[in-house]
Amino acid sequence: MMDYGKFFSADVPSFMRSPVREIFRKVDLSAICSFAGGYPAADTFPTEDIKRLSSLVLDKYGTKALQYGATQGVTELREVIARRYGVPLSQVQITTSSQQGIDVCSRILLDPGDIVLSKDPTYLGALQSFAAYRAKVMPLEALTLSEAGRAKFIYVIPDFNNPSGETMTLAEREELVRKARALDLIIVEDSPYREVRYSGEALPTIREMAPERTLHLGSFSKIFAPGFRLGWIIGPEELLEQIYVCKQSLDLCPPVFDQYLAAEFMGSGALDRNLEKTISIYRRRRDRMLSLLEKYMPEGTSWTRPDGGLFLFLTLPEGMDTVEMYDEALSKGVAYVAGSFFFVDGSHRNTMRLNYTFIAEEKMEPGVKILSEIIKGRL
Amino acid sequence: MMDYGKFFSADVPSFMRSPVREIFRKVDLSAICSFAGGYPAADTFPTEDIKRLSSLVLDKYGTKALQYGATQGVTELREVIARRYGVPLSQVQITTSSQQGIDVCSRILLDPGDIVLSKDPTYLGALQSFAAYRAKVMPLEALTLSEAGRAKFIYVIPDFNNPSGETMTLAEREELVRKARALDLIIVEDSPYREVRYSGEALPTIREMAPERTLHLGSFSKIFAPGFRLGWIIGPEELLEQIYVCKQSLDLCPPVFDQYLAAEFMGSGALDRNLEKTISIYRRRRDRMLSLLEKYMPEGTSWTRPDGGLFLFLTLPEGMDTVEMYDEALSKGVAYVAGSFFFVDGSHRNTMRLNYTFIAEEKMEPGVKILSEIIKGRL
Repeated sequence: MMDYGKFFSADVPSFMRSPVREIFRKVDLSAICSFAGGYPAADTFPTEDIKRLSSLVLDKYGTKALQYGATQGVTELREVIARRYGVPLSQVQITTSSQQGIDVCSRILLDPGDIVLSKDPTYLGALQSFAAYRAKVMPLEALTLSEAGRAKFIYVIPDFNNPSGETMTLAEREELVRKARALDLIIVEDSPYREVRYSGEALPTIREMAPERTLHLGSFSKIFAPGFRLGWIIGPEELLEQIYVCKQSLDLCPPVFDQYLAAEFMGSGALDRNLEKTISIYRRRRDRMLSLLEKYMPEGTSWTRPDGGLFLFLTLPEGMDTVEMYDEALSKGVAYVAGSFFFVDGSHRNTMRLNYTFIAEEKMEPGVKILSEIIKGRL
Repeated sequence: MMDYGKFFSADVPSFMRSPVREIFRKVDLSAICSFAGGYPAADTFPTEDIKRLSSLVLDKYGTKALQYGATQGVTELREVIARRYGVPLSQVQITTSSQQGIDVCSRILLDPGDIVLSKDPTYLGALQSFAAYRAKVMPLEALTLSEAGRAKFIYVIPDFNNPSGETMTLAEREELVRKARALDLIIVEDSPYREVRYSGEALPTIREMAPERTLHLGSFSKIFAPGFRLGWIIGPEELLEQIYVCKQSLDLCPPVFDQYLAAEFMGSGALDRNLEKTISIYRRRRDRMLSLLEKYMPEGTSWTRPDGGLFLFLTLPEGMDTVEMYDEALSKGVAYVAGSFFFVDGSHRNTMRLNYTFIAEEKMEPGVKILSEIIKGRL
C-alpha cells in the first residue's frame, strides 16, 4: 500500500469541497424537487440554433475551428465581446468558464496569507478558489486598517448576487470604488447574471466606474449554455498580460469550436433573441416562486426579491438550522443549499439558497409546500 | 497611473512565456513553411463526423449536453475511455485539455522548491507548468541522493517524446519504474501521441507497469481535434480524488457538449477509422521528411527517426546556434522551434525541433531546402 498523503502540496489541506457539487454527485436532481443547483432552465437553451451553428461554423471557418487557437481566445469572439461592451480588443481575454476567470485572477494575485475582501454571503466557487491559494477571505465591511496591507483584491457580484439574489445600489457601488481606491486594491467583479435582468434598471458596472483597477468576469453559462464552459475577462492590459501567460500553462487556449459557436451566436443577434425568451421564462418563475413563498411560508420567514439572476435567499426564524434540516428535506424529495455555506465564517445557519430556474414549473408548488411543512414542524 | 506590479503573486516572476506560443502570436504559420507548431494536420480532422455527431448528440442527449456536467467528466465518455484502456471507471478523470492534466497534477503535488525529475529535452508546456509552481526541474539522470527528498514526481513522455520524437525502450521503462519505486516517487506519464504510431510495436505504458504510482495523461488533440480541449487522467483513486476537488475550483467541469462528441466519436468506432487515415498521412510525411533531410542536409547534421508522433529533432554541428539563426529563417519564410527551449538548462543551442504534420506537403521540400541553405551558409 502506498502512502499518497506525503506527496501532496501544502495547498491541498486547504482545498474545499463544494457542498453543491457533492450534492450533484450523490443525487439525480432532475428526479426530485430541486432548488439546489445554480443551473439555468434547460428550456432556455437554444438547441436549434446550436444545431444550425455547428454546421455553419464548420462551413465558414473550416478546420480552423478544430485546430489549436490563440491563448487570448479566438479573435472573432473577442471582437464580438469588445463591441458589445464597448471596450478595446486588447482588454478582452477569453476564459474556459468564468470559474477559470476566478481561478486565474486568484492565481496571478494571491499568495498564502493574503486577504480577499468579499461581500458576505458570496459565491461558493470563489470561496473554494481563494481557499485553494490559502488566502484569507474577510467580509468587505470587517477590514481593519492593520490588515489592509495583506489585502489584494475585493471580490463582488454586484448584479443578482449568488446566493442572495441582491443587487448593489449605485451608492453601494460608489462606496466600493471609493474604498478600493483609498486602499489601492484590485476589484474582481464577477458578473455572470448581469444580462439576465427581468425587472428594474441596470446600474453601471464596477468596471465602468473604475476601469483602471477592475477585472470584470463575464460568462456564457447563463446567456448561451453552461455546457460550453466559456467566459471572458475585461480588464487593464497590464493585468491581462499576466493572465495570458498564466493561461498558457493552464490549458493553452479555450475550446476553439465552442468559441466560434459563441461568436456566431452572440454576433448574429441570436443571443439577444434567446435572452429575451430566457428573461420572460425566469420572470414568470420568480413571480411564481415569490407567490408560493407568500402562500406557504410561516410567519417569521423572510426572503429576498431578486430583479434578475437565478436565486433567492430565505431566512428562517433564529435558531433554525438548514444544514441539519437537509437530510429530512432530501428524504422528502426536496433539495436546497444551506445558506451558511456561502458565508465566510459559516454562520447564518438559519438561511437557505433557493434556485428557481432549474426546477420544472409543476414541481415548484409541491417543493415549496414540503419545505414549508418541514419548517413549520420545527417551529 | 497604477502600479500593477505590487499586486502580483510571488509565483508570477517564475511564469515562463512559451516561445512557441509567442511565435504563433506574431506569425501566421499557414502563410509560411512552418515546422514550428505542434499542430496536427488539418486534413486529419474528421469534419464530416463532427457535423453529423453535433446533431446526433443534441438529439440523443438533449439539453443534458448543454447543461453543467459532473466534475469528473461525463459518465458516457469516462466509460468509453475505461473500456478502451481496460481500467475501472473510478480511475478515469476527464480534463479540459491534457495541458490541464499537467497543471492539475502539478497543482496538487508541487510546492515551491520541490523537484520534478524529467527526461531532457521535454515538453515546453510542462516546463512552464512546473516553473509556475516554482518547482525545480532536474534531468532524470542528474539526481543526487541528497536531493531526492525534495523530488515529488518523474515526468516523462515515453512514446514519441516532444520534442525528440524518441520512444523509450522496454529496458528504459523498467529502469524508470525501478527508480520511481526505489525513491518512492509518483510518475506523470504524458501520453498524447501514443496512439499515433506508424511503425514498430507498442510497448507497455508506464501506467501498466506501475499502476500504483502513475498518473497517465491522455489527450484527444491528436486523435480527434485539438479545438475541443479534452484529455483524461488515469490513475490511483487516492490521487484522482484530490484532482477532482481541485478541478471544482479550476473550471467546475470539462466542456460537456464536446465530451459527448468525443464519447460518440470514440465509442462508435469513428475514431479508429479516422486514426488509421491519420497514421497513413503521417507515415507518408515522416518518410518524405526523412528523405528530404537526407537529400539536403549537410554532413555533420543528424536527426531522429520517429516511429510516431509529430516531431523529429535535428542536431547541427557543434557551435551552431538555432536561436540566433531563427530570425534569418523566418525572414526567408521558414519557422521552427529552437531545441534549447526544451532543455531544462537551455543548452543544446545547436538543435531544433521540426514538426512535419502541420505543414502542407508541397511546402516541405522548399522549407527543408531553405533551412539547409541557411545552415550551409553558416558552416
